[in-house]
Amino acid sequence: MADLTSIRDLPSLTGLHHRRNPLEENPFFRPSHGFYIAPSDVVLSQVVYDLSDASKPRVAYHRAGPRREILYEPSSVKAAIVTCGGLCPGMNTVIRELVVGLWELYGVREIYGIPAGYRGFYSMEAVELNPKLVHNWHKRGGTVLATSRGGFDLSKIVDAIQQTGYNQVYIIGGDGTMRGAVKIFDEVSRRKLKVGITGIPKTVDNDVGIIDRSFGFQTAVEMAQEAISAAHVEAESAVNGIGLVKLMGRSTGHIALHATLSSRDVDCCLIPENGFYLEGKGGLFEFLEQRLKDHGHAVLVVAEGAGQEIIPRNEAQKQERDESGNLVFLDVGVWLKSALKEWWEREHPRELFTVKYIDPTYMIRAVPANATDNLYCTLLAHSSIHGVMAGYTGFVSGPINGNYAYIPLGEVAQTKNEVNTSDPKWAWVRSVTNQPDFETNFKG
Amino acid sequence: MADLTSIRDLPSLTGLHHRRNPLEENPFFRPSHGFYIAPSDVVLSQVVYDLSDASKPRVAYHRAGPRREILYEPSSVKAAIVTCGGLCPGMNTVIRELVVGLWELYGVREIYGIPAGYRGFYSMEAVELNPKLVHNWHKRGGTVLATSRGGFDLSKIVDAIQQTGYNQVYIIGGDGTMRGAVKIFDEVSRRKLKVGITGIPKTVDNDVGIIDRSFGFQTAVEMAQEAISAAHVEAESAVNGIGLVKLMGRSTGHIALHATLSSRDVDCCLIPENGFYLEGKGGLFEFLEQRLKDHGHAVLVVAEGAGQEIIPRNEAQKQERDESGNLVFLDVGVWLKSALKEWWEREHPRELFTVKYIDPTYMIRAVPANATDNLYCTLLAHSSIHGVMAGYTGFVSGPINGNYAYIPLGEVAQTKNEVNTSDPKWAWVRSVTNQPDFETNFKG
Amino acid sequence: MADLTSIRDLPSLTGLHHRRNPLEENPFFRPSHGFYIAPSDVVLSQVVYDLSDASKPRVAYHRAGPRREILYEPSSVKAAIVTCGGLCPGMNTVIRELVVGLWELYGVREIYGIPAGYRGFYSMEAVELNPKLVHNWHKRGGTVLATSRGGFDLSKIVDAIQQTGYNQVYIIGGDGTMRGAVKIFDEVSRRKLKVGITGIPKTVDNDVGIIDRSFGFQTAVEMAQEAISAAHVEAESAVNGIGLVKLMGRSTGHIALHATLSSRDVDCCLIPENGFYLEGKGGLFEFLEQRLKDHGHAVLVVAEGAGQEIIPRNEAQKQERDESGNLVFLDVGVWLKSALKEWWEREHPRELFTVKYIDPTYMIRAVPANATDNLYCTLLAHSSIHGVMAGYTGFVSGPINGNYAYIPLGEVAQTKNEVNTSDPKWAWVRSVTNQPDFETNFKG
Amino acid sequence: MADLTSIRDLPSLTGLHHRRNPLEENPFFRPSHGFYIAPSDVVLSQVVYDLSDASKPRVAYHRAGPRREILYEPSSVKAAIVTCGGLCPGMNTVIRELVVGLWELYGVREIYGIPAGYRGFYSMEAVELNPKLVHNWHKRGGTVLATSRGGFDLSKIVDAIQQTGYNQVYIIGGDGTMRGAVKIFDEVSRRKLKVGITGIPKTVDNDVGIIDRSFGFQTAVEMAQEAISAAHVEAESAVNGIGLVKLMGRSTGHIALHATLSSRDVDCCLIPENGFYLEGKGGLFEFLEQRLKDHGHAVLVVAEGAGQEIIPRNEAQKQERDESGNLVFLDVGVWLKSALKEWWEREHPRELFTVKYIDPTYMIRAVPANATDNLYCTLLAHSSIHGVMAGYTGFVSGPINGNYAYIPLGEVAQTKNEVNTSDPKWAWVRSVTNQPDFETNFKG
Repeated sequence: MADLTSIRDLPSLTGLHHRRNPLEENPFFRPSHGFYIAPSDVVLSQVVYDLSDASKPRVAYHRAGPRREILYEPSSVKAAIVTCGGLCPGMNTVIRELVVGLWELYGVREIYGIPAGYRGFYSMEAVELNPKLVHNWHKRGGTVLATSRGGFDLSKIVDAIQQTGYNQVYIIGGDGTMRGAVKIFDEVSRRKLKVGITGIPKTVDNDVGIIDRSFGFQTAVEMAQEAISAAHVEAESAVNGIGLVKLMGRSTGHIALHATLSSRDVDCCLIPENGFYLEGKGGLFEFLEQRLKDHGHAVLVVAEGAGQEIIPRNEAQKQERDESGNLVFLDVGVWLKSALKEWWEREHPRELFTVKYIDPTYMIRAVPANATDNLYCTLLAHSSIHGVMAGYTGFVSGPINGNYAYIPLGEVAQTKNEVNTSDPKWAWVRSVTNQPDFETNFKG
Repeated sequence: MADLTSIRDLPSLTGLHHRRNPLEENPFFRPSHGFYIAPSDVVLSQVVYDLSDASKPRVAYHRAGPRREILYEPSSVKAAIVTCGGLCPGMNTVIRELVVGLWELYGVREIYGIPAGYRGFYSMEAVELNPKLVHNWHKRGGTVLATSRGGFDLSKIVDAIQQTGYNQVYIIGGDGTMRGAVKIFDEVSRRKLKVGITGIPKTVDNDVGIIDRSFGFQTAVEMAQEAISAAHVEAESAVNGIGLVKLMGRSTGHIALHATLSSRDVDCCLIPENGFYLEGKGGLFEFLEQRLKDHGHAVLVVAEGAGQEIIPRNEAQKQERDESGNLVFLDVGVWLKSALKEWWEREHPRELFTVKYIDPTYMIRAVPANATDNLYCTLLAHSSIHGVMAGYTGFVSGPINGNYAYIPLGEVAQTKNEVNTSDPKWAWVRSVTNQPDFETNFKG
Repeated sequence: MADLTSIRDLPSLTGLHHRRNPLEENPFFRPSHGFYIAPSDVVLSQVVYDLSDASKPRVAYHRAGPRREILYEPSSVKAAIVTCGGLCPGMNTVIRELVVGLWELYGVREIYGIPAGYRGFYSMEAVELNPKLVHNWHKRGGTVLATSRGGFDLSKIVDAIQQTGYNQVYIIGGDGTMRGAVKIFDEVSRRKLKVGITGIPKTVDNDVGIIDRSFGFQTAVEMAQEAISAAHVEAESAVNGIGLVKLMGRSTGHIALHATLSSRDVDCCLIPENGFYLEGKGGLFEFLEQRLKDHGHAVLVVAEGAGQEIIPRNEAQKQERDESGNLVFLDVGVWLKSALKEWWEREHPRELFTVKYIDPTYMIRAVPANATDNLYCTLLAHSSIHGVMAGYTGFVSGPINGNYAYIPLGEVAQTKNEVNTSDPKWAWVRSVTNQPDFETNFKG
Repeated sequence: MADLTSIRDLPSLTGLHHRRNPLEENPFFRPSHGFYIAPSDVVLSQVVYDLSDASKPRVAYHRAGPRREILYEPSSVKAAIVTCGGLCPGMNTVIRELVVGLWELYGVREIYGIPAGYRGFYSMEAVELNPKLVHNWHKRGGTVLATSRGGFDLSKIVDAIQQTGYNQVYIIGGDGTMRGAVKIFDEVSRRKLKVGITGIPKTVDNDVGIIDRSFGFQTAVEMAQEAISAAHVEAESAVNGIGLVKLMGRSTGHIALHATLSSRDVDCCLIPENGFYLEGKGGLFEFLEQRLKDHGHAVLVVAEGAGQEIIPRNEAQKQERDESGNLVFLDVGVWLKSALKEWWEREHPRELFTVKYIDPTYMIRAVPANATDNLYCTLLAHSSIHGVMAGYTGFVSGPINGNYAYIPLGEVAQTKNEVNTSDPKWAWVRSVTNQPDFETNFKG
């Protein structure tokens, strides 16, 4: 198998002195046989095979975990932690664990929080962090360091890193942030700085590729149940009642999909990966008409990125982009709500009809991580620390098939985890909701 | 004292045969001395006195509870229950307890649910209710009977009551619904029908006068904490972050006030009873400017009825009214959000600023009642039953100074429970938030 | 009426200089007409009357709230706050509001927390408190000051008060603590110290008399629902399944009663005020036998003080008392569980039977206060402050018929709020559960 | 790779007619390329490799999912579902999804629930199930079918299966139940019955081998946080306060371990896989002594199976076993609580000390599954259905490295998933708690 398997190599700092891992002396780690991860330990990216086609090349990633030797003298480490982009449950846990892990496991004593995202590197004062200060942060939603979008000024950021003397930088953020991290890594390499750069993908949408899932996602799916449940009650308590819930998911519908499958109250789930249309044969209105006739009410879940291509846009809306460079989304929930009302008014002017629209976005993303995500954030943070201390740089940690691995930063920044609508899971959604296959209908 | 005290008399059905309360034979009630409420038992409406001014006339209401004699033969009772208007936590508990109470305490066997509000009397089929069917309804939000606004057609409704032979009608709804109930009571009296009419005020806003509070209110205040908490996290995690939460309260700010006092994260609470303005000295913008400078973030709670007089309205908006005849409210949250953004853009074009707006209305009102409200709904329903069985009609049950009493329907329909801004509680809000007294500023 | 009404007078500090209330200058209080409470403002203790018997003497209490004149120079105040006894939701909110209220409303700057209950006065160092420190305490369960039982050494405590120079002492605790507070008040008076003493009754059991309810009680009833719900699931999922829940309530069954009425899953509720027995006609076993035959399962709620007189005690157990001098209770839950098992084993040796016993005590009392209780704690703390600043001493604040009043400490320490089993509420429990009236059966 | 990989073959029913999967005609499944799982599709059991040792043989399992051909005529299927053993969050979801999946996906119309575990096959009447009946079951804790321990009578069970004509049997239960399922499978094979037997491992302890985790586990870890949090509050609010929480885990400490890692309030976590001792150098008392000296309080989490070998047992206790044949466990929580009190009383007779012991077992296992577990139960149930319909028998479904696979029943029944105390996760617990390595100390 070895010859068929290509290992994704990681950049590493060079010219640094190798030294014994201080865990060696740590009474809690009692490093026994098999404790340290060897360079030859890998995690396979693909665990499902068709045995009849075994000649396909396979990809493996270096396994995450403590190495027998590290490249930093702990007392010389000066670490920076920054959070960028929107909120996501678990950010504070990741920060807390980076601080506690660096401090307790490796004896690092200089750890700084960069406030308010990338711009904080060059425009604000860093906050000194220690285990006592961060002790209860995992119980708080949001990010105590504060965050912002944009503010990415490459030379100012690298200048600041260089001038302040940070030699480890932990960057927590979404896909835009990860692309920025790649640039920082490149520039740091170009300047030949001995600075380890690692990214920790933060996307409540779960749209990062390669890794199993992103932190905060499970918490978000859990919280989304409350909104769906309320929409269901509103719909059931009305005559021809529609409960409409918009969930996060700009380019992928994972939260909408998982929330729909976890709940059983959803009649239709609309996601970016699966186009839909309103009018005519096989369209949404026809489907809802039938569902109201049969059940008297219906619940719709729509991912924020769904339907973007069919919402009417004026010229300005075709141009506008947010600070991270993303096209400003039109509010599919608000649009659907009024489209539904207009439709009914037109078709059934004398019949009762109610649409209750719920946008729980900020109530979902601002909660603290649940137990599952808290544990995940811990493992993520510790994996990152072990990798950086071992001298790896320009990488990301994350679970692949349930095992933590190190992945080149550039690879993560380029991939996208979309809902595969030919996967059984999507079929299950459709069997749960009995919703039409808009695409087939449309094309067919 | 007796001569100074005026008792609010209640209408009563006449010409019916008096009979022993069947509770007399109920092993669970074991009516002992003091169990039955006598006609001379009253609840004082005013419990706070200035002793130096003791000559003021006092008002008392008949105390709620079982009477020694009732006016209905249980087997002849045909009861109707209807829910009108918007959702409120506890509606299903009230329905459940009316059904269980009538059935278990008095042996009534014909109990019907009218679907979808007033219009259900004349346009839909009633649902037969029994204890087994309603057994778990108190664990569900909304109303299983369904509800709607409007649909009040007096003669059709009373015709339907007469034709179907309902002789007890329990009406659960808001102020508009209660005014309708008064009309039904008047018309039923005019037609000399032997039909007991009782109203159970349902207003999550807690804007009913005379009674201590309306059911569902405590649950709503509890749920509002989640939204305020999320807004606080969003505001804290941003640079110059504003968390804006709109809470229910069309003409009164009780939910906003109580939610603000229960939480400690609110910087400013805007309610209908206390005007505010944006620009200039002593205005909201000046206040927020200072708060952002001091703390870096701020949380605003606004009742939906606040600021209606200062939101710019076009001609259409000056006319439009909803089905219950209420002026259609403009969305103060959406308006404030954009007004805040424009203001900052104008004043600080180059500084970061974020407003996160949360409208948790449907997530609050659709939850099941909490334990406190569940118990309250039980007492309310049972009080209503005892009153109706005793022959009272045209009345409302509710707690006055903690004791359940019967109040003439017309009196309840006419009063309004507003936040008294010269009361210490309002002062406490202002001391909690340190917010300006906009009215004084403006007038001064 | 005045001549029939006796006002419960309050002790007051003497020989102090009267001065204007600093609220006069507080922009948030804008004291307008009717803001200050006059000495003649009272709250009636009885709001329910039998008008035919109007000659009964009535009792009134001084109304709580800010007075126009106070007796302390704020800069000379040195306040102490102490928490004694077991945990109760809301303790931290009371502490927080005492600190914030004294600081913000009256400008007091010397506020100390006494650690670990009464013994902290003379054996530990006090903690200086300020608004910033206590800012988030209302979100935490328990008491940050820590608490303990016992440790009441009168002369050591008063010596410490005298030596440290505390001139305001806020004592939060249960009935034993309140009796201690009376002794402290007496001794302080005997020594002619100018020290205001006030008690804030803390009893999750809600067993304090005169006041409407004690703080934390509503939160406890809410949390108890979870345990009852779990017991119900366990019982339903078994064959002849019994779910048994023990709830707090040493001498009164308020939590058990309210939790039973709020839930609808309870088949039998046992409280201290209503004796019960196991064997024979009309006993618990007979009742359960029937219930299992009818429904296949049953849920029992038992207050911790119920059945103490029928649990077999050995000699040691007849003597043992806890630190507060209370008789050590035998665990009625553990005893019932084994009694039930023995009974079934004896009567139905070959049939399946399961008892699942849940004791949620510490999971209930350790939670933070819910919104209702948080607001209540705020009003309680602020009422206490206003009373002490006005020079009252040896008193307790609390709501009477919904209005805050001042009650002599001795009166509160002597009364007990028991469940009145001839009240309709108890009858309602029995109609909800269909449980037997053990006492009648036994006596009859 | 193929030659090094051994595939775990599955038993299959024989002599049945192959037919097209009815999903072929199901509009929701629109089976496209890659939809069906081929017999050559496998899931690797090991995803982590040491590349330098690539010659090790590998194990693979057949991938779960729909097959192109099935062996049952849907109208001839008569399916039985049974739940055995203790409660676990998600049981009702699994039942619901088996019913809905068989009905909606394959058109099966005869589905029966066996009440009260194995004994229900031969001693009770089965309940007919359909999608409408089970519609809301996933929102309820426990098992609506009811469950019991023991009652395994092989010949009676197989006789009943044969006589009733069940040809698909879905068995949900723990390790004892799975061993029973193996026997049923063997006996059914011996009798040459055409009955598909599948097991769905239910163990809140997560002690099943091979699969990633068992359903309900994540919910249990989440709920355990509440108990730990309460214990922490109790400990913090006392002087020398110990909060002691017993969590589920008879032979494995997964819940205790995960709950400890998710929370950050635990000072010491005791699990069955890691022996501990109380007295002397390196023992628990020494550790707690120090922790109380340093922090004033401590939180202990103990898995129910921990310390069984050091709790003193009398002769009877050495013999007693439960209905499933498991040794009756002594209550480690009750024992530890009293051992701690005795120790302190002995060592520090005059110092305050408090142990608050919480056993949240029934409050944890009786809750409904959270969103993550609900989704997992759905996938599990659907995987099982696809396997049985395809003719596999004597197997179990479950995720291996995140992908659903079919595993021979016997293999699952024989393996045990223990906490690997030489794994970094265990080291992380110890770094979180700073607890001693009792085993090393003891041996060393």
